[in-house]
Amino acid sequence: MSFSEFRPLDDKTLIEYIKSVPALSSKLGNNFDDLSIKEVGDGNLNFVYIVSNTAGSFVIKQALPYVRCIGESWPMTKERAYFESLALKEEGRLSPEHVPEVYHFDRTMSLIGMRYLEPPHIILRKGLVAGVEYPLLAQHIADFMANTLFFTSLLFRTTTEHKRDVAEFCGNVELCRLTEQVVFSDPYKVSQYNRWTSPYLDRDAEAVREDNLLKLEVAKLKSKFCERAQALIHGDLHTGSVMVTRESTQVIDPEFAFYGPMGFDIGAFLGNLILAFFAQDGHANEANDRKAYKEWILKTIEDTWNLFHQKFTSLWDEHRNGAGEAYLPAIYNNPEVQLLVQKKYMTDLFHDSLGFGAAKMIRRIVGVAHVEDFESITDAGKKATCERRALDLAKMLLKERRKFEGIAEIISAIRQY
Amino acid sequence: MSFSEFRPLDDKTLIEYIKSVPALSSKLGNNFDDLSIKEVGDGNLNFVYIVSNTAGSFVIKQALPYVRCIGESWPMTKERAYFESLALKEEGRLSPEHVPEVYHFDRTMSLIGMRYLEPPHIILRKGLVAGVEYPLLAQHIADFMANTLFFTSLLFRTTTEHKRDVAEFCGNVELCRLTEQVVFSDPYKVSQYNRWTSPYLDRDAEAVREDNLLKLEVAKLKSKFCERAQALIHGDLHTGSVMVTRESTQVIDPEFAFYGPMGFDIGAFLGNLILAFFAQDGHANEANDRKAYKEWILKTIEDTWNLFHQKFTSLWDEHRNGAGEAYLPAIYNNPEVQLLVQKKYMTDLFHDSLGFGAAKMIRRIVGVAHVEDFESITDAGKKATCERRALDLAKMLLKERRKFEGIAEIISAIRQY
Ligand SMILES: Nc1ncnc2c1ncn2[C@@H]1O[C@H](COP(=O)(O)OP(=O)(O)O)[C@@H](O)[C@H]1O
Ligand SMILES: Nc1ncnc2c1ncn2[C@@H]1O[C@H](COP(=O)(O)OP(=O)(O)O)[C@@H](O)[C@H]1O
Ligand SMILES: [Mg+2]
Ligand SMILES: [Mg+2]
Ligand SMILES: [Mg+2]
Ligand SMILES: [Mg+2]
Ligand SMILES: [Mg+2]
Repeated sequence: MSFSEFRPLDDKTLIEYIKSVPALSSKLGNNFDDLSIKEVGDGNLNFVYIVSNTAGSFVIKQALPYVRCIGESWPMTKERAYFESLALKEEGRLSPEHVPEVYHFDRTMSLIGMRYLEPPHIILRKGLVAGVEYPLLAQHIADFMANTLFFTSLLFRTTTEHKRDVAEFCGNVELCRLTEQVVFSDPYKVSQYNRWTSPYLDRDAEAVREDNLLKLEVAKLKSKFCERAQALIHGDLHTGSVMVTRESTQVIDPEFAFYGPMGFDIGAFLGNLILAFFAQDGHANEANDRKAYKEWILKTIEDTWNLFHQKFTSLWDEHRNGAGEAYLPAIYNNPEVQLLVQKKYMTDLFHDSLGFGAAKMIRRIVGVAHVEDFESITDAGKKATCERRALDLAKMLLKERRKFEGIAEIISAIRQY
Repeated sequence: MSFSEFRPLDDKTLIEYIKSVPALSSKLGNNFDDLSIKEVGDGNLNFVYIVSNTAGSFVIKQALPYVRCIGESWPMTKERAYFESLALKEEGRLSPEHVPEVYHFDRTMSLIGMRYLEPPHIILRKGLVAGVEYPLLAQHIADFMANTLFFTSLLFRTTTEHKRDVAEFCGNVELCRLTEQVVFSDPYKVSQYNRWTSPYLDRDAEAVREDNLLKLEVAKLKSKFCERAQALIHGDLHTGSVMVTRESTQVIDPEFAFYGPMGFDIGAFLGNLILAFFAQDGHANEANDRKAYKEWILKTIEDTWNLFHQKFTSLWDEHRNGAGEAYLPAIYNNPEVQLLVQKKYMTDLFHDSLGFGAAKMIRRIVGVAHVEDFESITDAGKKATCERRALDLAKMLLKERRKFEGIAEIISAIRQY
């Protein structure tokens, strides 16, 4: 069998494929008798197979030319697998402890072979629904974000390297367009794809579409998303793109990666933690009132930003005399001006993160793709109440984000909704 | 003779070249006996030949692999000619009345053949030094800027078209880097290239290097220049890139073109008019006190912004139900929100223009490349006084630009310096 043309794999052809690729078959000790193959793709877009035997294991992720959760009626370039492999390799280089190793990439087949994140790794979002605490999560994600964002920005790189990579990732435009549509557009207009907990949130969804100040702010963020090539961003850094154990934090699924605004990643992560917070009351029962867990989520939100801030600015300090061209040492080499520019940069980044985070929250409540945090609340009325609190906070954050000076003020605001 | 490899032309080889290119030789009626060839390049980078006989004429512009005014010690990719030809064609399509037609482009030879802008066309900067009024200038430049910027922005285009063209122009990185250096970096540090009217401005130049708030603001602008792909900008729209008669306004020399912030073009033009204004006292004599001419410059500054604003927003209104993806009609189609987003967009653009314009003024006084407006003032003390007023205004504008609400306030500020 030849794989010189694209074809969607199934359990049977997948084995033939693996046999034809030494980098994969060697992982299995070239033994195909006791092979286990399991399709586990629970994401929105792609097919994911866990392949293992006693000798070893890996994961095969294949992109088909449409959006999996919608079907062939929503075409989507399978070239996204190319950009996912590029991003996985770059992120893996910059943050090896938090990104699965890529074993193999096949552009023709839109297929990536990578490390299988073995149990007890689970998707973070599922852990958040189950009420599990991850003591190292904030530190790990802060490290991942600081490393990947700092080292691909003009704080570390020359504009020559930057423009070369910006141009390459411009090729991932179809995935950017999907974000433009589902995050920045559909929730603010009538769209066949939008849905919400009806009838409870009918008025709330309508209010989003009629809030001129909200639409003004979301337009500014959309422009920033489309125009500002600040760093290589993951592009889909919600809690469903992170796999965790108590000791390990692994970021997967960067198929939306491109050079965009850093705040889009930071906001995605923080915004999804805030969604998890507001979902907790829907999960509370007699056995567990979730109060302590809510405090852990708030602390994780606060720590994530603070540790990110700390790590990012210390990378900046460490490399201030390096090749990065945004702030040349010959101009910014005195402590006073260094402090001034860092403070301004970090404040702007904080406000961007709040704005993008809020936009990501809104779209998960009134847009096409919802989150398990809320979807798993069976009582629709209770669910809608949780969602409404998250939505109201998000609308306020999107419009008023520039009034907040630090993450502690955000934690206070969350408590008030 | 073959031109299958790059070679710098001279008067003799230029004729051979023209003979080998039908699109050029036909312009001359294929008659080479009475040919006149004149090298007129007075710009900083390239060689420009006027070629004419009784049958016709054209201009040949060739890029050599270094910066002409510095010499071979400052290498510069000759691929800039490719981006200049791309930009000339695109700008010519969008604003045909204000861009010379391209007859021929040869990438191997880094050579453009274009319409000869015949006398009485002169470089606008020379007209400003001579005190000549151009009654249509503001309208023409406003039209050029509105058409080229609007139609290459996401107000008119899809993100698919946008990312494709952004990627292409990322290739012009070397010219962007030249701007980064001479506009946003060198003036704020000690550099072998910087010069100023010494000893008069020694303290002023030092003050620029030691002004932390100024350096903070210029860093923000540099980041915007490097990261924000808002529209196809000319990239070098000073008064030396415009040729004029009383009836005609022609924009030449877009070799710095790329997808960048619109305010960089608007600011370049306005900033250079402000420089021309402050130079007038140095040109005043008993025959002409230049008072009326200064008023004409101020009026041209005011009209340029106001006419640009008018034209740009009416293009936006006209195309509000078009394919532009920044503000989808289904979201922004009510008059109230349309007004709100336009007002915000134009205010931000105004502030960007002030910032970039101020940065361009500063670099012309304490950076590598100066302007004939000041250079032609023979009395060094008088020249320095003119330059200092411009410099002080520019520093204030760069730092305080967000406090200005309209162009009339800028005119008042100019009068106060
Ligand atoms: N390297 C991996 N190890 C273990 N499980 C994985 C791995 N990659 C993906 N998965 C599983 O497959 C699911 C879908 O993967 P993901 O990359 O998020 O696909 P999609 O792009 O469709 O969202 C994940 O939620 C996770 O359960
Ligand atoms: N199309 C043209 N018609 C007439 N003169 C031109 C034309 N193009 C350039 N010139 C003359 O050549 C000079 C240098 O051209 P320019 O394109 O600005 O080169 P540079 O990139 O070196 O600055 C201009 O200042 C102008 O005098
Ligand atoms: Mg996923
Ligand atoms: Mg971009
Ligand atoms: Mg995905
Ligand atoms: Mg020129
Ligand atoms: Mg030039």
